[in-house]
Amino acid sequence: MYDFTHAPDRRGTDSVKWDVQPGELPMWIADMDFATAPEIVAAMQQKLTLGAFGYEEPHADYFHAVADWYATEHGVPPDPAWMIFTTGVLPALSAIVRRMSHVGDSVLVQTPVYNIFYNSIENSGRHVLTNELRYVHQQYEVDFDQLERQLALPLTTMMILCNPHNPVGKVWTRAELTRVATLCRQYHVVLVSDEIHGDLVWRGPDYTPIFALPIPLIQQTIALVSPSKTFNVAALHAATVIVPNDHLRAQVSRGLNTDEVAEPNLLAIPGTIAAYTQGHAWLAALRQQLAANFAQARDFITHHIPAVHVVASTATYLMWLNVGAVTDDAAALAASIRQETGLIVSPGTIYHGNGNRFLRLNYACPPAMLQDGLQRLDRGITHYLQTRQD
Amino acid sequence: MYDFTHAPDRRGTDSVKWDVQPGELPMWIADMDFATAPEIVAAMQQKLTLGAFGYEEPHADYFHAVADWYATEHGVPPDPAWMIFTTGVLPALSAIVRRMSHVGDSVLVQTPVYNIFYNSIENSGRHVLTNELRYVHQQYEVDFDQLERQLALPLTTMMILCNPHNPVGKVWTRAELTRVATLCRQYHVVLVSDEIHGDLVWRGPDYTPIFALPIPLIQQTIALVSPSKTFNVAALHAATVIVPNDHLRAQVSRGLNTDEVAEPNLLAIPGTIAAYTQGHAWLAALRQQLAANFAQARDFITHHIPAVHVVASTATYLMWLNVGAVTDDAAALAASIRQETGLIVSPGTIYHGNGNRFLRLNYACPPAMLQDGLQRLDRGITHYLQTRQD
Ligand SMILES: Cc1ncc(COP(=O)(O)O)c(C=O)c1O
Ligand SMILES: Cc1ncc(COP(=O)(O)O)c(C=O)c1O
Repeated sequence: MYDFTHAPDRRGTDSVKWDVQPGELPMWIADMDFATAPEIVAAMQQKLTLGAFGYEEPHADYFHAVADWYATEHGVPPDPAWMIFTTGVLPALSAIVRRMSHVGDSVLVQTPVYNIFYNSIENSGRHVLTNELRYVHQQYEVDFDQLERQLALPLTTMMILCNPHNPVGKVWTRAELTRVATLCRQYHVVLVSDEIHGDLVWRGPDYTPIFALPIPLIQQTIALVSPSKTFNVAALHAATVIVPNDHLRAQVSRGLNTDEVAEPNLLAIPGTIAAYTQGHAWLAALRQQLAANFAQARDFITHHIPAVHVVASTATYLMWLNVGAVTDDAAALAASIRQETGLIVSPGTIYHGNGNRFLRLNYACPPAMLQDGLQRLDRGITHYLQTRQD
Repeated sequence: MYDFTHAPDRRGTDSVKWDVQPGELPMWIADMDFATAPEIVAAMQQKLTLGAFGYEEPHADYFHAVADWYATEHGVPPDPAWMIFTTGVLPALSAIVRRMSHVGDSVLVQTPVYNIFYNSIENSGRHVLTNELRYVHQQYEVDFDQLERQLALPLTTMMILCNPHNPVGKVWTRAELTRVATLCRQYHVVLVSDEIHGDLVWRGPDYTPIFALPIPLIQQTIALVSPSKTFNVAALHAATVIVPNDHLRAQVSRGLNTDEVAEPNLLAIPGTIAAYTQGHAWLAALRQQLAANFAQARDFITHHIPAVHVVASTATYLMWLNVGAVTDDAAALAASIRQETGLIVSPGTIYHGNGNRFLRLNYACPPAMLQDGLQRLDRGITHYLQTRQD
């Protein structure tokens, strides 16, 4: 019913991902090489017939579409009154860091984690406080003892959670979230939960939105959601901030307005409404494709590149590859692979934590393109190992 | 060739302007009740066929389109290397205030002026320093003596110029701009020139972009331009920051990135390129329509509402109405007009300076709609005068 076998050709467009040399294959930046849901494009086309494109603001239909999506897809309906429109998850996160913490404060993140979090924190003069995830039996888990000590520090005023977690592909359990939220409440730490990958759990138990926890536990939480990753519409510039507590929400709203990231462009509202009201079937098909792609990549790597271990995952379209048997300098390895084969993957180094022994591979593309990427990876790793033996 | 007789019906859409009660007629917020250029819509439609809408960045074709537009329309080609993309004039202005001045500094504006400037300055903890325009013979002029004293103050680190000037509809001359830029250079004040209305000079001498001044004079200047007002595409979320000095530009660029207002949405680049490469004929037709509308409104008011004086203007689509013979409380007058007739105009009060004796009327709409607005204005003023006599 939907086509996941053809990648729109974005060479020579304004795409950041495809701004590459001839012959190169980008599997790094987190957007997909699939066309978005045709229902969304139809709604965008419809909007263009209006003709006049002055100032806009979202109304009840937008907020209800978000609420219904979470009710249907994730079994929990956030109150539309808790929501604020914003132009993106990162714009909102940066504005929240500025509004809800002070210069010199510590903002806690769990490493390895999405690299741009560091920019959001450090660009505004806050410090990164690192709660490194423990890597045990090729799986990541939270070091809760250290977490509690860190949240108890007086300068720790904010924690940024990534659920599901980019780059390690892990879905946090309700029990884990409850522990984190409880600690944040106890130590008066604002908990920002980046849930941009929440719709992309393609196997096993679904993710738990932070606002699904009991009301007393979510008075200091801020969830960030968006159709951006789900539907491959990063350039739609649309996301929603969900803040159950009235006072906190009023402050966040001021922050978004001050930073001018609270107004929708002309496609943001109709695009989001179409995604959230008509996108269910497309997403179900996408999840199947991502599950198949993950299996394809895992099987290929297991059989052909035994020096590389695929970290188990049930979410996102980002594969976390343990290359510790090959190198402890993932940046050098990624550079060599690009040089030798044209394949562009992210060196785990940029995510901090134990990332210097990992690569991140974006597998959201047609199976044939993925196969090409895997063969390049094979060649690149083989070449790297040979060079090192020389 | 282009239709300026029909207003797209934006009631019940997400339009801020048309979020009004049945029967009300909004002539306040600065977008137009005309459809944008069909060439722009065609380019947007074309973009939608791409299908995948991941992260984007502007390339040389964007910056050359901006440069060619200024060469053709205004006789001065800014160097594409001076340019930075941004999501809007206000987002850029707020980011520049934060990056190029300090908390507690004074930012100079010339009142009465576009009200949102005050938010950009005060939301970030800077102070507004007011250089009130002198109103002499129903015309506004700069008080240069006061300006020099104010720019010389050590806490004055930035000046925001509005050229052409909203709400008074004045186009500053090259001589005036030269004097302002010279003073700003002398006193080390960053001069931000908001030129969003620059394309809308519909009679007489064209506006002078600040970057048309000699190179030594523009080393501390920042121009903000956009197709937003020109083509009625405020919700395109696209603007360009033009900074001739390399060092200043690098700092501004960091500010825009930190505030997350430097990335284009999926329509911003193709929409802007279409506007700037194919929009010349449409703009020529629009200017004729605006000139005709201004004459229609001026003639109506002169004949039917003698208590109101139309301030002479050659630019923007905002008419500045001196209602000093009616009231010195423009806010009360505007509220009364809305109450009695449904016509919504902006009370000059919000622009500060001598604005409490003025109304601002947006005349960018089909002539029939304008006529309706003028008749309501007539009734509203008459009613207000009668009530006051009672
Ligand atoms: C965890 C996470 N948050 C945020 C983003 C970016 O969000 P946005 O494009 O809405 O700013 C990404 C993109 O890769 C991401 O992985
Ligand atoms: C002088 C001036 N600057 C800026 C703006 C708004 O610019 P933008 O929509 O690009 O933020 C307006 C809109 O009325 C304006 O009149």
